[in-house]
Amino acid sequence: MAGNTIGTLFKLTTFGESHGTAIGGIIDGCPPNISLDLEDIQKDLDRRKPGQSAIVTQRKESDTVKFLSGIFEGKTTGTPIGFVIENENQKSKDYSHIKDSFRPSHADYVYQQKYGIRDYRGGGRSSARETASRVVAGAVAKQVIASIKINAFTSSVGDLFIDKPYQDLDFSKIDANDVRCPDSTSAEKMIEKIKIIKKQGDTIGGTITCVAQNVPVGLGEPVFDKLHAELGKAMLSINAVKGFEYGSGFCGAKMKGSEHNDLYNPDGTTKTNLSGGIQGGISNGMDIYFRVAFKPVATLIQKQDTLTKTGEIIESQGKGRHDPCVVPRAVPIVEAMTALVLADFYLQNKMYL
Amino acid sequence: MAGNTIGTLFKLTTFGESHGTAIGGIIDGCPPNISLDLEDIQKDLDRRKPGQSAIVTQRKESDTVKFLSGIFEGKTTGTPIGFVIENENQKSKDYSHIKDSFRPSHADYVYQQKYGIRDYRGGGRSSARETASRVVAGAVAKQVIASIKINAFTSSVGDLFIDKPYQDLDFSKIDANDVRCPDSTSAEKMIEKIKIIKKQGDTIGGTITCVAQNVPVGLGEPVFDKLHAELGKAMLSINAVKGFEYGSGFCGAKMKGSEHNDLYNPDGTTKTNLSGGIQGGISNGMDIYFRVAFKPVATLIQKQDTLTKTGEIIESQGKGRHDPCVVPRAVPIVEAMTALVLADFYLQNKMYL
Amino acid sequence: MAGNTIGTLFKLTTFGESHGTAIGGIIDGCPPNISLDLEDIQKDLDRRKPGQSAIVTQRKESDTVKFLSGIFEGKTTGTPIGFVIENENQKSKDYSHIKDSFRPSHADYVYQQKYGIRDYRGGGRSSARETASRVVAGAVAKQVIASIKINAFTSSVGDLFIDKPYQDLDFSKIDANDVRCPDSTSAEKMIEKIKIIKKQGDTIGGTITCVAQNVPVGLGEPVFDKLHAELGKAMLSINAVKGFEYGSGFCGAKMKGSEHNDLYNPDGTTKTNLSGGIQGGISNGMDIYFRVAFKPVATLIQKQDTLTKTGEIIESQGKGRHDPCVVPRAVPIVEAMTALVLADFYLQNKMYL
Amino acid sequence: MAGNTIGTLFKLTTFGESHGTAIGGIIDGCPPNISLDLEDIQKDLDRRKPGQSAIVTQRKESDTVKFLSGIFEGKTTGTPIGFVIENENQKSKDYSHIKDSFRPSHADYVYQQKYGIRDYRGGGRSSARETASRVVAGAVAKQVIASIKINAFTSSVGDLFIDKPYQDLDFSKIDANDVRCPDSTSAEKMIEKIKIIKKQGDTIGGTITCVAQNVPVGLGEPVFDKLHAELGKAMLSINAVKGFEYGSGFCGAKMKGSEHNDLYNPDGTTKTNLSGGIQGGISNGMDIYFRVAFKPVATLIQKQDTLTKTGEIIESQGKGRHDPCVVPRAVPIVEAMTALVLADFYLQNKMYL
Repeated sequence: MAGNTIGTLFKLTTFGESHGTAIGGIIDGCPPNISLDLEDIQKDLDRRKPGQSAIVTQRKESDTVKFLSGIFEGKTTGTPIGFVIENENQKSKDYSHIKDSFRPSHADYVYQQKYGIRDYRGGGRSSARETASRVVAGAVAKQVIASIKINAFTSSVGDLFIDKPYQDLDFSKIDANDVRCPDSTSAEKMIEKIKIIKKQGDTIGGTITCVAQNVPVGLGEPVFDKLHAELGKAMLSINAVKGFEYGSGFCGAKMKGSEHNDLYNPDGTTKTNLSGGIQGGISNGMDIYFRVAFKPVATLIQKQDTLTKTGEIIESQGKGRHDPCVVPRAVPIVEAMTALVLADFYLQNKMYL
Repeated sequence: MAGNTIGTLFKLTTFGESHGTAIGGIIDGCPPNISLDLEDIQKDLDRRKPGQSAIVTQRKESDTVKFLSGIFEGKTTGTPIGFVIENENQKSKDYSHIKDSFRPSHADYVYQQKYGIRDYRGGGRSSARETASRVVAGAVAKQVIASIKINAFTSSVGDLFIDKPYQDLDFSKIDANDVRCPDSTSAEKMIEKIKIIKKQGDTIGGTITCVAQNVPVGLGEPVFDKLHAELGKAMLSINAVKGFEYGSGFCGAKMKGSEHNDLYNPDGTTKTNLSGGIQGGISNGMDIYFRVAFKPVATLIQKQDTLTKTGEIIESQGKGRHDPCVVPRAVPIVEAMTALVLADFYLQNKMYL
Repeated sequence: MAGNTIGTLFKLTTFGESHGTAIGGIIDGCPPNISLDLEDIQKDLDRRKPGQSAIVTQRKESDTVKFLSGIFEGKTTGTPIGFVIENENQKSKDYSHIKDSFRPSHADYVYQQKYGIRDYRGGGRSSARETASRVVAGAVAKQVIASIKINAFTSSVGDLFIDKPYQDLDFSKIDANDVRCPDSTSAEKMIEKIKIIKKQGDTIGGTITCVAQNVPVGLGEPVFDKLHAELGKAMLSINAVKGFEYGSGFCGAKMKGSEHNDLYNPDGTTKTNLSGGIQGGISNGMDIYFRVAFKPVATLIQKQDTLTKTGEIIESQGKGRHDPCVVPRAVPIVEAMTALVLADFYLQNKMYL
Repeated sequence: MAGNTIGTLFKLTTFGESHGTAIGGIIDGCPPNISLDLEDIQKDLDRRKPGQSAIVTQRKESDTVKFLSGIFEGKTTGTPIGFVIENENQKSKDYSHIKDSFRPSHADYVYQQKYGIRDYRGGGRSSARETASRVVAGAVAKQVIASIKINAFTSSVGDLFIDKPYQDLDFSKIDANDVRCPDSTSAEKMIEKIKIIKKQGDTIGGTITCVAQNVPVGLGEPVFDKLHAELGKAMLSINAVKGFEYGSGFCGAKMKGSEHNDLYNPDGTTKTNLSGGIQGGISNGMDIYFRVAFKPVATLIQKQDTLTKTGEIIESQGKGRHDPCVVPRAVPIVEAMTALVLADFYLQNKMYL
C-alpha cells in the first residue's frame, strides 16, 4: 500500500530520494484565496536545512522550494499545489561503501527485504531529507490556520532537560541559539554537550516539546481519528522518533484521578491542564502540548560492525557529513507536522457548520 | 469527517453508544476461507467485559457478540463481517445527573461543543464501551495472522512497575491474576493498590506493555504509514491513553548512538533490540514491543466540582459502577488494536508478492 | 481490498448476504442535530421491497429497518448510525440446486473464483438485497440535503420509451402506477409488457432517468472526483446496471459544438441544459439529470444451460420468486445513490466556507 | 475535499494548470523491481500531445516527461514516482479576453463560483492539459500489468460509426491514421468530417471504444468498488465525457433475459459476452469492452454569447489553437485510465493470495 500521503482534507503526498534528482510533493485540499507568504515558507525550510550552524551536518544544500501550481497572482486557487526542491549536493560516491551492506539501526536492511531493491545513496527514500517536503507543506498549513500559534523547541538533549514548565519560557527565543532551546542556560549546556559528542564521532538523542495555542474547541474526529491519535501518528512518522506523549503523558499513568482531573472554570476553561488541551480526542480550547522522543542518529563517525548482503559482518565507518544530534533541525519538522494535522481537522470541522 | 474506521485493507468501522440499543461494527477486507474460532473471539471479549473480578467495575453485561454476515459454514467468505453486541444493562437513570453538566476530564463538554448535541447516558459514544467492538475485530484479526504471537500485560499501576525485562516474563501467566500482570509478586502489590484506591473512591493510572513476536520482515509502509506510527495511532485512539513509546522509547532519547545502535548477526537478526523490531517504519523480524500510558479514570466516587450547561460550578459525584483502574480490562484492547494494525499491514504487504 | 464503503465525508458501509441473518450498514459522517423522520425512511424502503405489486417478485419481506445508534431523542448526534434489516423469508432450500453450479450471467462463477468460497444462497453478497441498506442510507441523506429534490422514474422498459422530455412530466405521479413511470400512457404499456414477459418466464431490461433539482452551485471535486464521475460510479455499482449518461449523454457525442453549447442568461443560468447541470465536474445550479441502463434480470423461469463446479453443462431452471423487470424496484435505489453522492459533496463543499 | 487522487493501491495524484509552470504527478504504490521502458511512456505521451496532425490543435508542446524519483538504475524501487512535464508554449495573452468572462459550456463559471478565484489562462486546472499526467501514469500502469492488452480506438465521430464489431478490427491499425480508427474506410470519412467541421470553426463529438484482453478472473471489489463502476468513474473523470456503457450497455436495456444471458462453455468462458467481461463487478476472464461518449469541444472559432463577471452578455470568439474533435487525442487517455484502474485492482487482488 502506498504510504506517502497524510491527511484527509488537507492532504500532503511526498516523493523523492536523498540523492535523486529532486524531492517534492503535492498539497491537495488547500482552501482557495489564501495570500501565501512564500518567504515565510522558505524561512521554515531554512530552519531545517543542513549547514546552518556548527552543531548540525555541514552538508550544503540551498533547499530552495519551487512552486509549480495551485497559486495564481499570489493566492491559492483551491487546486493542488505542486512543489519541488532540487537535490544539489549529491555526493553519491560517499555512499558506494554501503551499496552492498546494511548499516546498523538504519533502514537499509528492511528496505532491501521488503522491496527487493533500494536506492542506497544516502538512505534513499528512508533519508530524513524527505522531511523538507513536510516543512514546505506545514508552512502552507500554518498560513491556513494563521490564528493558531504553534511553537516547538528542544526540551532535552541526552540527559540535559529544561527544568521549567513551558509556560515559563519565551517562545520568541527559540531560534536565538543553535539548539533551539528557549532557555538560554539549558541551551548553552546542550550545545556544549553536542559539540563533545560530535568530537567523539558519536551522536545523541533528545526530545522536542510542542505547544499549540489558540486552538478552537472541537477539532478531532473520534473514535479512531482522535486529535492526539493523529498528532501521535504524525510525530511517529518523523525519522528517528521513538515516543509520543501529550498532556500528563507517561507521568499521568502514575497519578490518581483526584490529582489528575482538570476542574472547570465557569467559562469552560480548566484550572489545570493535565489533559493537554484534548478530551475524548477533541480539542477543548486549552493549550495543546506534547513531547516527542528522538533516538540518537544511527550514523557514527566511528568504526562499527556492519552486515553485508552476503551475510558477512565487516567493520565500517560513516563517511560524509552527518548530524551529531537531530533535534535542532527537527524542531521545524515537528511544527510542520503539527500544522498539517491541525489544518486537516480545522477543515474537517467545517462539516459541522 | 467520519472518524469511525481504522485500517486500509483490513478495515473496522464501529458504531454504538454506551446506553443505546447495541454497539457493533463491520469488518471489511477480511480474507476468505479462514475457519473462524468463534469461541476464541468471545473469550477475548470476556477478558474485557465488566464484572469479571473485584478490581474492575461491577456493572453486569454478558457482552455476547452476534455475527450477522460474512461467515458461511464456519468460514469467512471475503465479504464484510457485520456484528452486534447488545447493551443489556442500561441503567440510564444513573446518568440523569449529568444531563445538564460536564464532568471534569470527560468528553462531555467537547462533544456538546462540537456537535451541539450529545447522548449523555454513560458518556454515549465517548464511553470505553465502544472498545468491545474493537476486541471482536481484533480477535478476528488475530486469526488472520495466526502465526504472529501478541501478548499485552499490565506493566505498571501507579508507581508500581514490573522490574524485569519482558524476556524474563512468562506470558502464559498474564491471565493468572486479576490485574493481568505476569509477574505474580508485582501483581499482588498492584491488586492491593487498586483495592485501596477503590475504597477511597479514587482511581489510578498505569501502563501496558505489548510484545508481538514472530512478525515477518517487511510490514509497514513508509513514509507516513510507518508501522510504529500506525501502532501509535491505534493505541492513542484507545480511551484514556496519554502516551506511546516503542523500543527504547523516551529512554532512547537520553542515549548515545554508540550505545543505541543494534548490531547485526550474520542472519540479519540483531544482537540487541533497542529498535523495538522496527527500522525506518518497517518490521525487521525481531520482537516488536511498545508501552502505552493510561491516565486514571476520570469518574470518581468522590465529590468534585462540575460545570453546568449554564456556566455554574456545582458539586457532583460519580454514581454507579466504575473501574478504579482501567488497565486490567485494557489489556485485551491493546492486543486487539495491535492485531488490527498487523493484519492490515500483513495484507498490504501482499502487494509485493 | 474492502469495497463495501461509499462516500468521503458522508460514508456508507454495508454488510449482509441475501440469506444470512440480517443485512445492514453504518452511516458515518451524518451531521448532528437533524430531526430524522424515520417513517419517511421506512417509506422509501417499502418502495423497494419485494411483493408490493403484480409485476415484481412475490417474495415476502417486511424489510423493517432498526436503528441501533447515532440517534438520540429523535435527532442525529453526529456519531455513526448503525442499522439492521433482518432477513425474514429465507427459503434457503430454494437454492440448493445452485450449490454446485454457476448460473449464466450471475456472479456465482466469479465469486467462487475470486474468493474460493461463496454463500450460494440467493446469490449471497451479490444479491440485490444489499441495496435495501443503500435505500436506508439514501433516505437519511435526503434529509441532510432536504432542499434538493431528487426524482427518479422508469423511462423505458424494453423498447418502450417515454417520448416526452422530463420537464413535461409530473413527478408526483411517479408512484401512481406499479412501474413507476409518471406518464400514464407509457406506464400502461410498460406494465402490459412486463406481464407478458413474466408469463413467458422471461425478463426484460429498462432505463431509469433521475433528475436532481435545486442543487446549489459548486458541488463536485475535480479532477478525478467530478460530480458526474461519482454519480456514474454510484449508479454503476447498482446490480444489473450497464450504462450511465448525463445531460446530452451519448446523443451529445453526435452533435456539433455550435448546437451543444449552453448559452448563459445574465443571472448565470443557461438557456439550454445539454450540460446536465454540471460543467467541469461541478454543479452549475441547473437541473442535474442522467439516465441509467439496467440489463434484464438473469434468473429466468425457463430451462437454461448452466455450468457445474466440475465443468459440466447441465440444464437448470430458476426457482422461487424473481423480478421479471428490475426497473420499478430500482427507482428508489437510484434516488438513494443520488442522495448519497449529493450529500457527500454537499458536506465536502463546506470546506470552502 | 481534495479530488486530485485516483486509485487505492496504485495511486495517482496530479497537479498543474494549463498555463502554469508545469504539470505533473506522483504515482504511489507502484510495485518495485519493474524495468520501466521510459521510451514507451514518452510514446504514449506523444500520441496525446498537440500538433501531431492536421485534425488536432496546432499548439506546440514537446510534452517531455521528466521523472524525479522512484526509479533507480532503470527499475522501480517501490517508492513514489514523481514526475513533471513543463508547460513550454504558454501564450497566456491568448486568454486575457476571458479574464472577466465565462465561456459557455466551459468550467469558467463554476470554478469562479466554487473557489472564488480561478487561473483563467487556458482553463487553468479544468483544462484537458491535466490528462497528460494521466497518460504518463497510465503508461507506467501498463508495464505493471504487461500481460493485459488494452486497446482503445475512435468508434464514431458525429454520426459516423464503425459498423463492425471490435472482433473484426485490427488493433495494430489504430495509429495508422490521424483519427485513430482501425477501420480505414470509416477513418477516411471521419477525417474528412473533422476537416469540414474545423473549416467552419465548429467542433464535433464522438465515441471511443476500449477493449481489455487477457484480464485475469477476479479483478473488482464489490459491492461499491465494482470493476465497471471504477472504470466508469475513471472515464467520466476525463474532460468532455458524457456517458459510459460496458458490454451490452444501453442496448442491453432493451433486451430480454433469454437473449442477454451469456451461456457457459465447460471451461468457464462464455459463448457470448454481453456481460462485457464483468459479472457482479468482477472480471470473468472474457474481453472487457466499453464505450465512452465525448461531447463536442466547447471552444468554437465562431462568435458566441458569453457571460461577463458583471452579468452582461457579450459576443466573444475562441482564439488560439483548439481541437475540432477531442476524440483522436483522447484515445491514449482512455487507455491510460483503463490501465490505472486495472493495475489498481490487480494489486488489490493480491490480498487473496
